[in-house]
This record gives sequence, structure tokens and C-alpha cells, in this order.
Amino acid sequence: MANKLGVNQYGKAESRVVRIVRDTARHEIRDLNVSTSLRGDFEDAHITGDQAAVLPTDTQKNTAFAYAKLHGISSIEDYALALGRRLLEACPAASDAQVRVEEYAWDRLGDHSFVRRGGAVRTCVVTVGREDAVVLSGISDLVVLNSTDSEFRGFLKDEFTTLPETDDRVLATSLVAKWRHTAVEGVDWNASHAAVLQTLLDTFAGTYSRALQETLHAMGCAVLDDQEEIAEIRFSAPNKHHFLVDFSGFQVEGLTNDGEVFIAADRPYGLIEAQVTRDDAPPADDAWLHVPGFC
Amino acid sequence: MANKLGVNQYGKAESRVVRIVRDTARHEIRDLNVSTSLRGDFEDAHITGDQAAVLPTDTQKNTAFAYAKLHGISSIEDYALALGRRLLEACPAASDAQVRVEEYAWDRLGDHSFVRRGGAVRTCVVTVGREDAVVLSGISDLVVLNSTDSEFRGFLKDEFTTLPETDDRVLATSLVAKWRHTAVEGVDWNASHAAVLQTLLDTFAGTYSRALQETLHAMGCAVLDDQEEIAEIRFSAPNKHHFLVDFSGFQVEGLTNDGEVFIAADRPYGLIEAQVTRDDAPPADDAWLHVPGFC
Amino acid sequence: MANKLGVNQYGKAESRVVRIVRDTARHEIRDLNVSTSLRGDFEDAHITGDQAAVLPTDTQKNTAFAYAKLHGISSIEDYALALGRRLLEACPAASDAQVRVEEYAWDRLGDHSFVRRGGAVRTCVVTVGREDAVVLSGISDLVVLNSTDSEFRGFLKDEFTTLPETDDRVLATSLVAKWRHTAVEGVDWNASHAAVLQTLLDTFAGTYSRALQETLHAMGCAVLDDQEEIAEIRFSAPNKHHFLVDFSGFQVEGLTNDGEVFIAADRPYGLIEAQVTRDDAPPADDAWLHVPGFC
Amino acid sequence: MANKLGVNQYGKAESRVVRIVRDTARHEIRDLNVSTSLRGDFEDAHITGDQAAVLPTDTQKNTAFAYAKLHGISSIEDYALALGRRLLEACPAASDAQVRVEEYAWDRLGDHSFVRRGGAVRTCVVTVGREDAVVLSGISDLVVLNSTDSEFRGFLKDEFTTLPETDDRVLATSLVAKWRHTAVEGVDWNASHAAVLQTLLDTFAGTYSRALQETLHAMGCAVLDDQEEIAEIRFSAPNKHHFLVDFSGFQVEGLTNDGEVFIAADRPYGLIEAQVTRDDAPPADDAWLHVPGFC
Repeated sequence: MANKLGVNQYGKAESRVVRIVRDTARHEIRDLNVSTSLRGDFEDAHITGDQAAVLPTDTQKNTAFAYAKLHGISSIEDYALALGRRLLEACPAASDAQVRVEEYAWDRLGDHSFVRRGGAVRTCVVTVGREDAVVLSGISDLVVLNSTDSEFRGFLKDEFTTLPETDDRVLATSLVAKWRHTAVEGVDWNASHAAVLQTLLDTFAGTYSRALQETLHAMGCAVLDDQEEIAEIRFSAPNKHHFLVDFSGFQVEGLTNDGEVFIAADRPYGLIEAQVTRDDAPPADDAWLHVPGFC
Repeated sequence: MANKLGVNQYGKAESRVVRIVRDTARHEIRDLNVSTSLRGDFEDAHITGDQAAVLPTDTQKNTAFAYAKLHGISSIEDYALALGRRLLEACPAASDAQVRVEEYAWDRLGDHSFVRRGGAVRTCVVTVGREDAVVLSGISDLVVLNSTDSEFRGFLKDEFTTLPETDDRVLATSLVAKWRHTAVEGVDWNASHAAVLQTLLDTFAGTYSRALQETLHAMGCAVLDDQEEIAEIRFSAPNKHHFLVDFSGFQVEGLTNDGEVFIAADRPYGLIEAQVTRDDAPPADDAWLHVPGFC
Repeated sequence: MANKLGVNQYGKAESRVVRIVRDTARHEIRDLNVSTSLRGDFEDAHITGDQAAVLPTDTQKNTAFAYAKLHGISSIEDYALALGRRLLEACPAASDAQVRVEEYAWDRLGDHSFVRRGGAVRTCVVTVGREDAVVLSGISDLVVLNSTDSEFRGFLKDEFTTLPETDDRVLATSLVAKWRHTAVEGVDWNASHAAVLQTLLDTFAGTYSRALQETLHAMGCAVLDDQEEIAEIRFSAPNKHHFLVDFSGFQVEGLTNDGEVFIAADRPYGLIEAQVTRDDAPPADDAWLHVPGFC
Repeated sequence: MANKLGVNQYGKAESRVVRIVRDTARHEIRDLNVSTSLRGDFEDAHITGDQAAVLPTDTQKNTAFAYAKLHGISSIEDYALALGRRLLEACPAASDAQVRVEEYAWDRLGDHSFVRRGGAVRTCVVTVGREDAVVLSGISDLVVLNSTDSEFRGFLKDEFTTLPETDDRVLATSLVAKWRHTAVEGVDWNASHAAVLQTLLDTFAGTYSRALQETLHAMGCAVLDDQEEIAEIRFSAPNKHHFLVDFSGFQVEGLTNDGEVFIAADRPYGLIEAQVTRDDAPPADDAWLHVPGFC
């Protein structure tokens, strides 16, 4: 019986890479948060302290900034693939490089002026191995709300259940979704992402909901139906509760609340996580291995 | 020599009021964060513990929710004025009621479906006294960036100065601005706010900057020039530093950085605060007294 | 009628200064978050863009780090006074320098090993003018809770009031307090701070509470009674509501809740702000002017 | 080729359970953040919207609060096991219940008065299946720092490497660790946790570090050596960079920086994740499946 090193990875998290393209007077901006990790044979670094196989996290960061210029950022997926391949090339001991990117959108105010858009953040997680690569595209902080056409009833009850059934409630979530592509080459990442986002929004708005689970499932199916090249999609969706304010104790004549005034609660919140997948999807290998927040 | 109670106020902070207007199939949503405070003669509550003069913060919260229905939210300023007046009426010991509101914008997806817009937050601080009221409208989290036309040079130097002068840098801030209206009645709050926001954005984008101070001053003057009814405007503007990444130590031929790749830094940050005012502005009384983040 | 520049200040916020004293094998650590601001005649910087009078925020930051070595940090008040005086000396246009410091405490693990303590943060706000200086010492994030000996009853009621009176509730707050010293020289800042903190804790624990206002007032009086050199104290205290969980709808025999199980709520929260002062306290001038969170 | 539901789980996150034990005048407090999830056969909820098998997240929350009284909280692990078993009993469709708990420590001020300690948070993740259960105990936000006895040298270099080698640096991390117990019954959870924490601190303080990886590995081995009942431990450790401030450009005679003044940086940060395991550890099944932040 002895101890041994198990799974491990290391890298540089949250490099805030801002790229200005200024080839013409009309500048472009890409605003990223980049994290990289290397996995592989790094036993010596852990056990003897020998760092000979270790490409420093500082170098990983430097490479992330340099590749914003050397390779450019036509899409975060394309940039992450290039960066991951470079890190694998630079570090022989690594078997895999994972690059995680968040992109913050800006709206144009002028030729060289921008205002940050806010709202949903575009994401990707790219895992590059010695043989192949897997791309997960995604979205986070997509806050959507239906003010009706949502019910919750017919659920299991026990002695601790106090929730009344309802046939009209607010349904709201701050959606995190990630979807896996079967292809790595030949994808128009920006067009694909825009199409998925539109499908998610349309399906959310157009689906009568008997539970957030049903809505998520419908959204997942719609994405897979739309783009053959997407193998699966996973959701992590907090149920952002909007509780109807109880005016019944107020001594105010005629003050009613027919689904009009809500308190938006912080904690606790329901948390629904689900995957929708093609039944013939190729295996994901380790693509989801270190991705937080997904079952 | 004795101790005495000095300035004091109390209230309920951050009630998350969500109002759905569902008079027709096409719903509307207003999404607010509401804080209220009362000031006045509350000595007994502090010194003897007698609460007879104290309108509980719980009641203040209840009123905030009820007024979302009873008065409605045509604008946050109008709602805050009504709520402040009600609180003053309900609490004879109070001399002033202050209502602070943040509004989160949503975009429409369908008749009863919405996606949260993100980006800048609309704000107001309304202080209602027994005789009069003062309205501060505002904006926060307005993140803007100019990728050129910004310099910083000719500054004072001492033995601790290492910053090089530059004639081309990124200028970015996450702006908080509040402006004081001279009128309380007859203002189209929504139109006024939209116009100020547009003026701020246009001026930021259109001004060559020798310092963030100069840009803020120009923005303030533009707002005052546009709307006679606005007496003053105050800014709190973190200088969100974007440092040019130094590629000089990289052994990569041809890798240059002519204002193209930046690291967006978190801390420390410059913090610029300034007021622009009409020279004949009426006094503000206590309108700014408890407003955080402003000089 | 013309526009003019009003109040203004600028500086560098949140420099994270960590000082290791390693004169012997037994190291010491001081871990600070330092913000500086200069006020004075900076009209040109705003109006013409001329920066000749402006000591850059970058230089202010450099000075903050250098003074951690040149002057040392025997206490944050002493360090802030020295830093403020230096900034005033370096910048002739400035009439005042304000230095705000937060200190994070560490516990010792070994001669050169430490674990961050967490809990309350020690603070100071020092405003240095050409003639004199004012020191505010303080504490923030001091989370305290009484599980009984707290009531809330006899309050004003109106038609929106639904809160029941109670003679036994949990009282909890995350206290921010700042107190003003009349002296600048000859104070043992560390001893004084430790004594105030102890008095605040003892008084909170030992006071039967009819309202958070009464508790704060008692705490303020106790501090002023203990240290003659302190002229006034101000509190900003969120009432961190702990709501008794209602088990009445549960179908579980014998399940009662006599003040035993609470849900700690996030928002909204009561917010109580108050000042206790000596009736012969010298004027504070601008010491509180730019200090957020205080009335 | 068709779509199908894949992995999924649902539950209530972040119920803030505060338990006061007031059987005597000397009260006790336990302050928890509780999250629960159920996994199993919930296809109907997703596909047809039929909720008959779904124990609502609201009921899960109610049970979490009720069990704070009915079962009590002798330790978070014991409480989580009881709660998980109850949820599995109440929900026949579930195959597994996962309960995640964070505990915030308080120090005593008096018989019924407490001050929140801050610092590290005790955690557990308990996964209860129909046959067995797995307990992961843990710690988060354990911020530790060595001011010397840390080097980083001999690492792999490429054309993007600019980091100089160093034989004396500050090593600091905000540690997250979780360790898996082989036993579920008969463990003194509180004693075991205290012992692991002490071992982690002692090993961190006592280990000369050639890399954070080596330090983590040493800490993991020490824990496994100390407690036979622990099968494995996993770490997620941001390398909280403390950069030596460069005084070389300052025009101040004698101003040097021999490891004395550092700037604590926010982003980016190194992120080191590693597992140390017994070579004969029993399989973990799904115990780590939904645990964020671990490889």
C-alpha cells in the first residue's frame, strides 16, 4: 500500500486578453478571458520537484497574448484550437491542452469607440490531444424570463411538501449551455454560434413549460435538430425564483396581485442540469472532464 | 461633555421588485432594485429603544412592492417620488425619505418572453422632504472604451515616477454618473434619461482625450448644454487600465505590438471623480448626502 | 449662465501592498489594500487637458509601495499619515491627500508561514491637509449575532404593515464602523484599535436590544466613554435577517421551531446608519466627505 | 438517429440553514449553506412534462431545514448523510442523492453571542445511493502563504518564455481540498476534519517548495499517511502571485527590495489541480461526478 499521484493538470487561468485590430481607421475589438491547462506526465514536478518537463504557466499566458496577434481571433474556437496546438507542441510531456475562453461583446460607438454590451457571454472549451481535438461552444449568463405559459403541478408530495401547485408562474433562468461539435475543421464558428443562440431564445420563448426540465429538453432537441454537426448539448440552469408578493395582509382595498408583482429571490434557487444527445454521438473522451458545472 | 446621537437614517435596502404588466397578451416588464431610507427625529429608537415613531423597514419594503401596482412604474423617477411621498406621509417623525432605484433592462423575445439586456444600469436617487424633493437620475456600469485618440503626457514627475508618457493609449472606464434635475414635475424622465445617455456616449466617442478628467469634463458640459433643466452632473470613473503587452522579450521574429494586444488589469485602478455644475445651480441641500461614491 | 468644474478628486484605488519584514528568520507580514486621492486645484487637467499639475495615479501607487519599505507599516494609520504627507509634498496643486487602507490579518503558522485569518477587516481613512490631518480608524465585515435578548415591538403601523411584533429574535449584522480621533500624534494606533474592537464586541454581546438602532447607540457610547481621544463614531449596519422557518405546514408530528432553525436571507436587508458624537467634538472638516457608506 | 435525454440531475442550491441549539442558556450555532441534487429516472419530467416522479426542489429545501432540527447537526457529514438518505427515501425515482454543505465558523462572545470567524470554510459532498454512500470532506478558502523557502527554476523554456528563474519567492494559495473517506459509519467527522486541517497547515509550513505541485503532493501524502481511513485527496490551488515590486526605476537612494515589498495580483493566476491517492483505494463511483473544480 502506497500513495501515488493521480489525475492532475496545471495552467494559467483568466488572462484578460484584449485585441484591437487597427489595420484601418475603423478598429475592431475582441475582449477575452483565457484559461489554459496542460495534462500529461508531470510526475517529477509533483514528486521530486524537478520542473524540466513543465512549461510555466507564465509562458502559457505569454503565448495566449502572443497568439492574439500571431494567429488572430477570427472566432474564440479558432483561436483556442491554435493556442492549444501550440501549447502541446511546446510541451512534450503534455498529452492534452485545454483552452477555455469567455468572450465579452462590445457594441460600436464610432470608428474607435465601443460600449460593452453586457448580457450573455460567449464561451468555448477546446481540448487538444496528440491525435484529435474536441470543441465545446457555449453561452453563459443568458438570463431569460417567461412571464406566463409556465406551470408546475402534479409533482410528488411528501410530509415536508408545502409548495402549492400553480398553473401560471414566472419562469426565469440564467442559462449556462455548452454544446459539442463533431467537427473541428470547416466549421463557421461564428455563424454556428449565432444560430444556436437564436434557436435557444426562440425555443425558450415559444415553449409552454410544465417544468424547467421540459423547457431545457425542448431547447436541446431544437439545437440538435437544427445543426447536424452538433453531437450533444448540456445545460446548467438555476431556477431564478420570482415569488408572487402576498398582498393579502395589506389593509388596502382593491389591492390584488394577479401575477403582476414579484420579488426576485437570490438564494436558495433550484438548479437543473441536463444533457440532450444524439443516440449515435461519438464519445466525448475527456472533453467534459474538467468543465465545472456540468453533470 | 456628553455623548449625543448625530446624523442617522434607516430603511430597507435592495428590495428586488419585478413588475409584469399583463393588461394585454403583450406583457411588459420592469425590473428594479429598490432601497429606501428615512431621516428625521428617531432619537427614542436609539436611546430608549422606544419604537413608536419607527415605520419598520419591513413596512417600507411592503410599500415598495405595493406601489409597483398601486402607482405603477412609468419611470423609476416617477415611482420613486410616489414611494418617497407615501413613506413621508406614513411616518410623521421623518423629515426626509430617500428612495434609490436601479433598473435592469430587458429585451423582448415574444409577447411574454424577455432576455435581460445586461450592460448599463439606469439609476435614480430621489430625496423627498416635507417642502420639496430632489431627483438625481443616473447610470452605472456603463463600460466604454476608446482604442485610440487618447494620450497622457506632460504630467508632474517626482522621484517615484516611472510611467512613460504616451500619445496613444486605450482609454476605458466603467462609468457611474448622476445628474440633478431642477424640476420635479413635468419632466419626461424616460426621454430625458435616453437623451443624457446618448450625449454621454457621443461625447465619449467624439472627444480626443488628454486625460480621463478632460473627457469627463467634456461629457458633463455636453449634458448641461443639452438639457437646461439639469443643474449639475457628477462622475465616478475608474480608469480601467489596459496595459500594452510587452513582446520585446519574446524570441519570435516580427512579433510587434503597435497598440494591438493589451492585458485588461483588475487592480489597482485610477479613480477619477468630478462634478460639472451650472454656476447658477440652485443648492442641492441633502440630495447627495448619503449617495455613495461621489465627492 | 455657464458651466464650471465643481468638486473633484483623483487617485489610485486598491493597490494591494504586501510587506514582508525579514530582518530575522521570523518574518512578519502586513497585507494592505491602499487607495489614495488628491484634491485641490486641478482645473487645467479637466478643462484644457494640461497635466502639468497632476501627479499621476501611477506615481501615487509607486509611492504607496515604496513607503511600505521607506517608512514601514507599524500601523495602517501611521503608514497612511506618512503616505498622505508625502503625496501632498510631491504635488503642490493638491490641498488635501486622502489615504484609505484596509488591512487583512494573518495568523502565524511558522517562522515564515502564515494563514489568512478572515473575519473583520481593519480600516483607516486619513485626510492630510496643508495645515492639519484627520484620522478615521475603523472596522468592516465584523459579522456578529445574538441568538436571543433581542425584540422588536411597539413600532408604528400603517395599512402596509404585516410584520408581527416579536420579543425574541436573532439580531445579526455585518458591521462597518469608523471613528474619528482628535489627535494625530502620540496615539498608539494598534492598542487603540484593539480596545475599540473589544468594546464593540463586549457591548454588542452584553446589550439587550429593542432595535438595532439601540444596540448601535450603546456601542457608540461605550467607545466614546472608553477613549477620550475619540470624538465620534459612525456605523453602517445591515440588519442581516434570520427568518424563523415556518414548520407549521409540515405533516411531521412534534416538529416545532422555538427559535432554533432560521433561514439567513440575502436581500432585502434593513440598513441602519447612525453617528454618536461628543457634544464638544471639534469639527470634522472634510474627513467624511468622500467616505462611502456613511451618512 | 434520434435525440435522447442524457445525464441529468436537479435540486435546490444554497439553502442558508442556521441552527441555534438553545437547550441551555449557553446557545450553540451551526451556520450552513446546503445544496441537494437528485439523480435517477426523471425522463418524464423532461420529455412529457409529467412531474409525478419529481420531489420538488422546494420540498428538498424544506427537508434540509427540518432535518437541522429533526436530526441535528453534530457534523456536516453526519447531517448530510441523514438528509441524503431521507431524500432518497422520499423520492423512489431517484437512484442517488447528493448533498453539498459549506459550514461557516463562529467564535463565541457570550452565552448567546457570536462573531463570525471568517477564513477557511469547511465543506462536504455526500453522495447517497440505494446501496451505499460516499463522503468527501473538504476545506475551501484556506489562504496560506510562505514568505520564503520557495523556488521555481529548471523549467522548460521556449521562445515565449520570459519568466526568470528564482530561488526565493512568495508562495501563496487559496486552497480548495476534498478528501474521500472509505468509511461512512463510525467516523468522528469533527476530529478527522480537524486533524486533516492541521496536517495540511503543518505540511504547507514545513515543506521547502520547488513548485506548488510539489507542495500539494507533500500535503496529500501527509494526509493519507496520517489517516488510514482516507482513500484519496484532491486539490485545486490557485497560485496567488505576489510579484516583487520593481524599485529599480525609482530615483531614491538606497531603496532596495530584497523580498520585502510585493504586489498581490488578482488575475491571471496559476491554477494547479492534483490528486493523491492510495494505490489500493476502492473506486469512487460517481462521488466526484458533479463536483466543480476538480479533475
